[in-house]
Formats: sequence, structure tokens, C-alpha cells
Amino acid sequence: MITAVFQGPAAAGDVLGALATAAAGAAAAGAELLVCPEMVTTGYHIGARAHELAEPADGPTARRIAGIAAGTGVAIAYGYPERDHDRVYNSVQLVAPHGRLANYRKTHLFGDLDREWFTPGALAVVQADLAGLRIGLLICYDVEFPELVRAHALAGTELLLVPTALMRPYEVVADVVVPARAYESQLFAVYANRCDTERELTYCGRSCVVSPTGEVLARAGAGERLLIAEVDPAALRASRTENTHLTDRRPELYRTITEGSKA
Amino acid sequence: MITAVFQGPAAAGDVLGALATAAAGAAAAGAELLVCPEMVTTGYHIGARAHELAEPADGPTARRIAGIAAGTGVAIAYGYPERDHDRVYNSVQLVAPHGRLANYRKTHLFGDLDREWFTPGALAVVQADLAGLRIGLLICYDVEFPELVRAHALAGTELLLVPTALMRPYEVVADVVVPARAYESQLFAVYANRCDTERELTYCGRSCVVSPTGEVLARAGAGERLLIAEVDPAALRASRTENTHLTDRRPELYRTITEGSKA
Repeated sequence: MITAVFQGPAAAGDVLGALATAAAGAAAAGAELLVCPEMVTTGYHIGARAHELAEPADGPTARRIAGIAAGTGVAIAYGYPERDHDRVYNSVQLVAPHGRLANYRKTHLFGDLDREWFTPGALAVVQADLAGLRIGLLICYDVEFPELVRAHALAGTELLLVPTALMRPYEVVADVVVPARAYESQLFAVYANRCDTERELTYCGRSCVVSPTGEVLARAGAGERLLIAEVDPAALRASRTENTHLTDRRPELYRTITEGSKA
Repeated sequence: MITAVFQGPAAAGDVLGALATAAAGAAAAGAELLVCPEMVTTGYHIGARAHELAEPADGPTARRIAGIAAGTGVAIAYGYPERDHDRVYNSVQLVAPHGRLANYRKTHLFGDLDREWFTPGALAVVQADLAGLRIGLLICYDVEFPELVRAHALAGTELLLVPTALMRPYEVVADVVVPARAYESQLFAVYANRCDTERELTYCGRSCVVSPTGEVLARAGAGERLLIAEVDPAALRASRTENTHLTDRRPELYRTITEGSKA
């Protein structure tokens, strides 16, 4: 499956217009999936406006993006602030040309930037099937927890989508942590970052698509970019035959890492 | 604490002589610790000779290395085939100038290369205190399992030593997985690889010392090398204040990753 990553838009303004242009570009490249950044519909570092702009998962913005997916034939994963009654989540939704497939609420909130405005999600593994691949959804800081990616792999995730808003000086996450996740848990990983600046934050771009061998199939620089890469199920099967991490685990040795809980 | 990594010896022959030279070099650089590769005393890819050459943890080779540690004032972590009655383990021992501190048996055996000759270790987290730092020991393939490094971090490991025998084409482990471990579990990681060739294997070198921010403090190329880096407890404390992965975990979401066991 050809997969596209929209690292953008760099400028504030007509986000859905930019997203429609990116989807058209993805379709022209033969892509069946377009992955966009965290909170792409509204901006991420927007303070109380996250609450003003939050919409239900089937709200007007979702319907417009579903229209873009239907019009271009490209499934779209995008971040947005989700309202559910009096709660607001930092969410990612996957919308196929034929309708909404899955909605995930960020479970690992990052610092005050997230915690001041969002309720943490309660469900770790959210998946959907697309073009014969089992897709999983995470958001930004979530992917820094290898346990969560492992839970995805054990639940069958083959292609992990990670919309993000990674700022300087955390390039290590895009350059090192994401490729390590793909290799150690034997899945394709798509990391779709914001670019440019918001208030005092400078996003570092560096969106990527990584194969289960840890090979970086496509990598963006700092600026706006539409990345294209092929996610090949045969390459996944070949890698899992060679790299047997998922079956070489010894869960009885790790019990301490799932003891206790932070309610 | 100044830490040295001996990526070698490149040539077969007087391994303990080479190790003594490396320890003297480490001492001259002010190091209190020297980390050597997996199975440094005998070679790694040696087939049945691993059983012939295996010694108890307090055997003659251990006593000679303890003598080098005492003579140079440098603690030495080194890999060797360990005999315990009728079993042979792929082990690493940490020997301080004042005596043996800890012995770890590889828990995650790598393919037929390991499984044909070694019994897997039963204890995941082996630690010792040295120069005010809590040291942890793992071996090669072990470090590719983030659960195991997490278990170390939660048990208090601050400096993780990983003697290894990493061969081509698995450079991704040295370049990407080890730095990811240091960052995600907030500890210093020392990865001490073999160099040169054994039979059909070519080791890729690339030994490294990585800080908890993911910064590579020192990195070897392919050939024999004595690396020197400073492991600073104050930098660890500063990084853990900034990067709160260990306290931001949500263990209740990962329960599936420690269910079941492969006996």
C-alpha cells in the first residue's frame, strides 16, 4: 500500500483546503492512505481554544474530511480536539473513503501542554483494517512508551500511525525512538509531525516512514512536505521471519513493568 | 565516573594481555570502569569450544581478570562462557578492584548461535553498586527487548552495561535501538561490541556510550578501539527531571505484554 504523510500545513489559515490539496497529491502518487499531524485541524499549541474548537468524532470537521476522503479515494488519519459531552480529548481519527474507521484518544498526555486541556484516553489499542493491513493509532508522546507499541504488535498491528507535534530539541524521538519501535516490535511506523512554529514552540518536522527492519523508507526535513512510501505486507512477513522479537520475548521476566497503576 | 569501552581485541591470541593493556589505558584516562564485549575471553562464534572453555564465575580466568582490576584500579565488565555444573551460560561478570561484584547470565538467547550451546539465564535484573552508581548488566540480544531495560530502570539501574557480539547487517541495534533505550528508560547505556570477523560473521563495531537524553557521548567505528566517556550522575538527575517517562507510564494499559510465558 502506498502511504503518504502530510507534514504541514506550515501556514495557519485554510487547513482543510491544505489537507484537500495534500489528499489530491497523495491520490496522484497512488496512495491509499494519508497521515496528518496531531491536532492538524486546529493547531496544537492553542491553549483554551482547544476547548472552543473541539468537536465530536462525527462533527462538521469530520464530515468535511470524510468528504475529502470520499472525493480522492484516500483514507485520512488526522489529529483533532475531540469533544465528548464535557470532556475534551486529544484524538486521531481514521476516515476511509467509505466512512469513519477508528478514533483514538491520546493515552499519554505530554506535560502541561496536554494536561491543562485534555482528558487522557482510557483505551490503549485502537485498530482498523485497511487494504489488508491491520492499522494502529497512537499520538506523539504515546510512541515514547515501548510498552504501548508492544501491546499493539501483540494485538496484531502491522502499520502504526503516529500523528505528532514534536518540537525542538526532541529530534531524538523522530530520528531514533521511532525507528527503534518499528524494529523491536516488527511493524511499519508512520510518524507525521507538524512543521514551523506555534507561539514559543518550533516543531522539528522529520516525519518518517520506517520499515520493520528499522530502515527509514522516507524522511522529511524541517519544512512542509508530502512524503510518499510503500508499505509492503510481504516485507513485513519477511522481516518477522528473520527478526523474531515478538516470539523470543520472555514475559515472565518482565512482570514488574505492569505492576501498579497511576489512576 | 569516567567509563572506558574496549572494542576488541581485533586479533585472536593473548586476549587477557590485550585486556590488561586496555585496562591500563582506561586507568591512564582516569576511568574507574572498563566494559568489554560478549564472550571476550574466548571468542563468541566458537561452537563446541564454548563448552570446553567454560569456567565457573570464580574460575582461573575470573581470578586473572580480578588481578588486572586490582592492579589497575579499574573495575572490569567482561563476557565469558560460564560453567555451572553441567550447564553452560553466556555470562557477563563485573569485577571491581576489591573483588567480584555481579554475574549475569544472558536471558534472551539469539538464534541457533546461542541456543545450540547455552542455557538461558533465569534472572532478569542483576545489579551492583559502583562509584555511587547503580549498575545493571545485560548481554547483546537482551537489549533489543525494551521490557527488560524498563525492568532495570524501575529497579533503579542508572548505568546499563551491554557487552555484545553484534554482526552485520544489524547496525540498527547499535545506532538506533541502544540510544532509544537510554532515552526512553532514562539511564546511561554502554554498548561494547566485538570487532573484526569470526568464521562467517563480521562484527560491526559501533560500540557506544549514550546519555539519558539520547545523546551519543562516544561512538566507535568498525575497528579496535578504546572509547572513553564520562557518566555523570548529575546529568542523569537533570535528564530524569526533564524527561518523565518513568513516572508517566500507565501500567494498567500494558497488561497484555506480561501475560503468558514461554517456559
